[in-house]
This record gives sequence, structure tokens and C-alpha cells, in this order.
Amino acid sequence: MPGPRYTDLVAGLPASVPFVGPETQERERGAPFLARLGANESVFGPSPKAIEAMAEAAREVWKYGDAQSHDLRHALALHHGVAADNVMVGEGIDGLLGYLVRLVVGQGDAVVTSAGAYPTFNYHVTGYGGVLHTVPYRDDHEDPAALLAKAAEVGARLVYLSNPDNPMGSWHPAAAVEAMVSRVPEGCVLVLDEAYIDLAPEGIAPVIEADDPRVIRLRTFSKGYGMAGARVGYAIAAPGLIAAFDKVRNHFGMCRISQAGALAALHDQHWLTSVRIRVAQAREQIADIARDNGLVPLPSATNFVTVDCGRDGAFARAVLREMVARGIFVRMPFVAPEDRCIRITVGRARDLSVLAQVLPQALQAARRG
Amino acid sequence: MPGPRYTDLVAGLPASVPFVGPETQERERGAPFLARLGANESVFGPSPKAIEAMAEAAREVWKYGDAQSHDLRHALALHHGVAADNVMVGEGIDGLLGYLVRLVVGQGDAVVTSAGAYPTFNYHVTGYGGVLHTVPYRDDHEDPAALLAKAAEVGARLVYLSNPDNPMGSWHPAAAVEAMVSRVPEGCVLVLDEAYIDLAPEGIAPVIEADDPRVIRLRTFSKGYGMAGARVGYAIAAPGLIAAFDKVRNHFGMCRISQAGALAALHDQHWLTSVRIRVAQAREQIADIARDNGLVPLPSATNFVTVDCGRDGAFARAVLREMVARGIFVRMPFVAPEDRCIRITVGRARDLSVLAQVLPQALQAARRG
Repeated sequence: MPGPRYTDLVAGLPASVPFVGPETQERERGAPFLARLGANESVFGPSPKAIEAMAEAAREVWKYGDAQSHDLRHALALHHGVAADNVMVGEGIDGLLGYLVRLVVGQGDAVVTSAGAYPTFNYHVTGYGGVLHTVPYRDDHEDPAALLAKAAEVGARLVYLSNPDNPMGSWHPAAAVEAMVSRVPEGCVLVLDEAYIDLAPEGIAPVIEADDPRVIRLRTFSKGYGMAGARVGYAIAAPGLIAAFDKVRNHFGMCRISQAGALAALHDQHWLTSVRIRVAQAREQIADIARDNGLVPLPSATNFVTVDCGRDGAFARAVLREMVARGIFVRMPFVAPEDRCIRITVGRARDLSVLAQVLPQALQAARRG
Repeated sequence: MPGPRYTDLVAGLPASVPFVGPETQERERGAPFLARLGANESVFGPSPKAIEAMAEAAREVWKYGDAQSHDLRHALALHHGVAADNVMVGEGIDGLLGYLVRLVVGQGDAVVTSAGAYPTFNYHVTGYGGVLHTVPYRDDHEDPAALLAKAAEVGARLVYLSNPDNPMGSWHPAAAVEAMVSRVPEGCVLVLDEAYIDLAPEGIAPVIEADDPRVIRLRTFSKGYGMAGARVGYAIAAPGLIAAFDKVRNHFGMCRISQAGALAALHDQHWLTSVRIRVAQAREQIADIARDNGLVPLPSATNFVTVDCGRDGAFARAVLREMVARGIFVRMPFVAPEDRCIRITVGRARDLSVLAQVLPQALQAARRG
């Protein structure tokens, strides 16, 4: 019987997914998680003003969202001191990364990232036929010099850096990123993923001229603003690149409720500040729990703590497996030697209480292995 | 200074957008519309239960949505009497069309649609390098025989049919669509866009075996369910095609609030029934208003009425312009001879009161030309 003919590119793609979500894992294990500390979501939730704005917007959801996200885009421009035509709002950083890759990466085009960095970026690159070139982390940090050297060597269209970094929680100071921007090879764009920047200490966000065509910054309402499920991200870049998104994006793709929530969240910086404080406290508590169990917490500028389990990847995977089996959703780096670690998102008191209880049991079980 | 190198495909794409949204038009005209009757949104809104579910879900929006939309997908499968692996939930029909085109349309591949049919489908086809072949409408209906003949002639990967049709409101009975499915050429898939089917009389939705690889049905919560701003659509197709979406889709792209709202909306079929009744009444009222003004309303199985203005496209465009200038957001078909019409979405009493007041003025102004 007749049926679809897939493109050669699609026929060659794996059926894989970037991540297995917690709900999928809950269905597989047949029980809900006791603590949801694996996806770097913000357990502290969104601003109450954002919740109120979303509830209100739900009544008007019979209307399509504004295709230009005008009000949010202009508010973001004001917030960042850039022009509105430097800002593109999209369906989370994931959605924006997909559009960006589609704009510049054709079949066989080179892209550079760190081995073990954000897999959804890699998913998009592979999905559009790009060829990934990776460099290793260096002492649990992404390595700007190596990324740039590789980008120049392979003639990359894009070079990816997350700062602060996921999954290691490490970071480079603003000056290092500024230096990296100044050395982006011709014909390449630095994809600066700043998903976690709202939770980082001062001095990490670089000063970048918004019209600089060598870099695109990506921000999100998913982390500090606590709205992962709303799918609102934005890019800051030169007007030419921002305008190019209009050639390929899903113009009416933004949820109207999410647009309203993000705008209210942006206007409640007081809430963001309170989240930053609570995240910093929870990071310390996770670090204490790790140390109490003889493990080494790595410094973090994010809403998670990457914990060195002190042995190899097989051991860390066993620890993770035992934690998941005991009802704690956590994740871990994919690549050695970073996969000696597990990655624990910050939690509320009740989440961390479960963590403190389960971690020693999981370690004991993993050691018995 | 260095900057992005766009792919050859992207470099050749127009900067155009499929539609200019009503908010954009409001900003351009410097005043809000008095009646929003142009985007086939449901002025009657979503089920109160859906609104309540969305307000509740807003509190939990710190969590990513379920990447598999498991609960909604299974509820839809039950509703339609198909298996869960026949159903893919996505970011509106627009989002699903983008994924579908990406799966099967490479550069130079042929796609068939009707001249003047849904432009967002065309946008995706062009955006992935496909080549559009069109056939004309026949007596204000899409022409299945001509679509099939063209698809066979050009070796199309996809052939598009909306039933009921947008922008004409016309329809084919179930048997005609079933006959069309049976004649889809080998290597081609029928894209059956049923966005408006929830508002159509009985006897229009064809019986299709869900595992039939020759057709993919597209449904939405944007029209009858009144949730256009939530961006929830779904596809029903053979498991192989459904599974292929996992290769390219934005796995965590669904808004968690929208998932919850759609599930609640689906469970409130009583609301959908009440909307159907109100839509049918409003269609009659619009038809009466049209006739009162000497115009000819076309029969409609949708939530809009396409009104023949009785002269050519230039005249209908003038009528539309005068209506927009007087605060009524309406749209019209793009292609002759269908562009002799304007398309008016059903409204509440207050919307139709504005319509009754403005239409004669707009006609008079257009006739003065």
C-alpha cells in the first residue's frame, strides 16, 4: 500500500529523543517521584503575579497569541537596554535553537560544541544534517580556546557555549566570554546559551553590543522565572539575524497564556531576586548533604549542584539508578570524565529532606553494586 | 565583521509572513478592533472547565510539560476509537504541518494544494525547499479529482485538502473524501486538514482506518474548542508516520497549561455541542446581514461565512479595507475568482451588531471607490 516517502535526511535520523521526561519515567516505574530534582526546573515556581496573569489570560485563550509577541518583546528590549529588533521571542530556547540551526546549518555544515554539552542543540544540528565536532571539557569547564580553535579548523557555522554551564554548573567570567566573542571566526556565530544566567552571581554576563553579528544570546523564562512549562525563551542578536527567524518560525506558535505570564514575570523582578536567594541557600544545603555523604559538590552558578561521586561513570550511573529507584528524579552528565558526577536540581525543604534520606541508601546500594 | 552564513535555501526565502495578525493591524491603525471576526477564532471561548484547568495548571507551570502528552494523547485515542500510537499531539496544526513537511519534503520535491488554500501549509513547503503545484477551486469547492490528478502527474509527496474548506466554508461529503483516500497515488500522503470538522454537520467526517498509510488527519483545539491561543493540535495517522515525528519535533515544546486545558476541553463535549449550536445560529445571522445588504452568503460548514460581494477581487478588497478601517477585523480569500468574497468569522450578538452597522457603510464607501 502506498505511504510516505521520507527525505533521505530524515530516513537516516535516529528515533531517539534528547531526554526522557520525568512523567515518562514515572509511568515506567509505576509510581510518582517523591522529589523532582532532575530537569533544573524551579521548584519555587513562578511569580504569583505571573500565575494571576496566566489565569486571567486563560479566559481570552480563544484568541491566537500576538504573532509578534510585541508587548513582551518591547519589555525585554527595555529590560536589557537593546532595541526591539534585537529581540526574538520563541517557544523556549529549544524552539529558538531549532530555528537558528535551520537558518544556518545545511547538510554537511560543521558545528562545534563541547562533548557532553546540551543534547537538544545537538539534536537540532543532526536533525538538519549538520556535522557535530566536539572538544572536551577542561577541568569541568567548557573550553573557549578549544571551541574557537575547532570552529576555525572545521569552518563551523555555529559554536555553542553555555554560560553558566549545564550540566557542570561551572562558569566563565564575563571577560572570558567577551574575549571569546572577539575571536569568533569569520562566517561563524557564537551561540551563547545563558539559560541559567538569572541565577548566577554578578560578573558572569558579558557586555555584548546587541548589534554584534558574531553572537546570539539565548535567555529563558524556564529557569529563574520558574515557567519551564510555559515555553518562553528569547534571543538577543543583530537585527539581521533576528529578522531571519521570520523566514522560518511558526509565526502563531506562541501560547497566549505564556506570553502574558512571561510579561508579568519580567515585571516582578522582586520575585526573581527572592528565587535567587532561595536557590543559593538550597545549593549550599545540597552541597552539605553531598559532603555529609563523603561526596564532593562542584561550585555552581545555576539552580543545580553537580556532585562528584568520586569514582567512574559506572558508579555514578549506579548511584543515579538507586536514587531514581527510591523516588528521586535526578540526571547526570553523559560523557566521561564528567559522568563521574550526578546533577541535582535545587529543591524546597521537603525535597532536600528526601534527598538527605535517600542519598546514603543509594550510595550504599551502589557500592554493594 | 563576521556574521551568519545562511543556508542557500534560507537565503532564497522571502521575509514574508503567512498572515498579519489582528494585534499587528491594531498597532498599525492605532486603535483596537470593535469586532474580531477575521481569524476564525471562537468568540464563545473555551469550556469553563478548560479555563479552570488552565488556571490550576498555571500554578504548576514550573514543571516542563509531559514530552509525550501522554494523558491527552490517550484521551484523544479513546475519543476517536484509535490506538494511542495513531495520535501525535503538537503545537497547533501549524506546528504539526511544519513537522510533517520536514519529514517528507526535501528540496525540489513536489507538493499539491489548491490555489488559495491554507497559506501556512504553503509557507512550510516553501520553507523546506518543496515545489508547490496548485489546482484551482471548482465552484468554490476544492477539487479532489484535480488534486489527485495533479499529485499523480508531478509525483507529489503530499496533497493537501481541508474539509470543511478554509477560506470558502464549503465541504465534501464523507464518501467523497473516502474515495479520494482510496486513490492517493503511491508515495504520496493526503494531508486532510479537519480544523473545522467539529463545527460541521454530521456526514462530513470520513471513515478512515487509522493505520492507513495514505492519509494523515489533522485536528485542533483552536476552533470548536475555542483555544486558538493555547496551540494544541493533533494528528491521526499510521503508527509509522506518527513515530517519525519523534525524529524532528520539539519534544518538550508543548505548553503544560495548554495540555491541561485541552484535556479538560475534550472531556466537556457538552460545551462543544453548545458552541456548535451557537455557531450555527450566528452563521444564519451573518447570512441574514449579508442578504440585507444585497450580498450572497455561501453555505458554510465552519465557524465563518464567506460572503460573495458580487463583483471582482478589487471590489471585495475595497469592502474589506473599509470594514477594517471601521474597526472590524475580517479577512478574505487570496486568489481569483474566490477573492470576490470576504470571510466573516461568527460573532456574539455584540459583534454581529457592529457588523450590521458597519457593513452597509463599508459597501457604500467601496462603491464610491
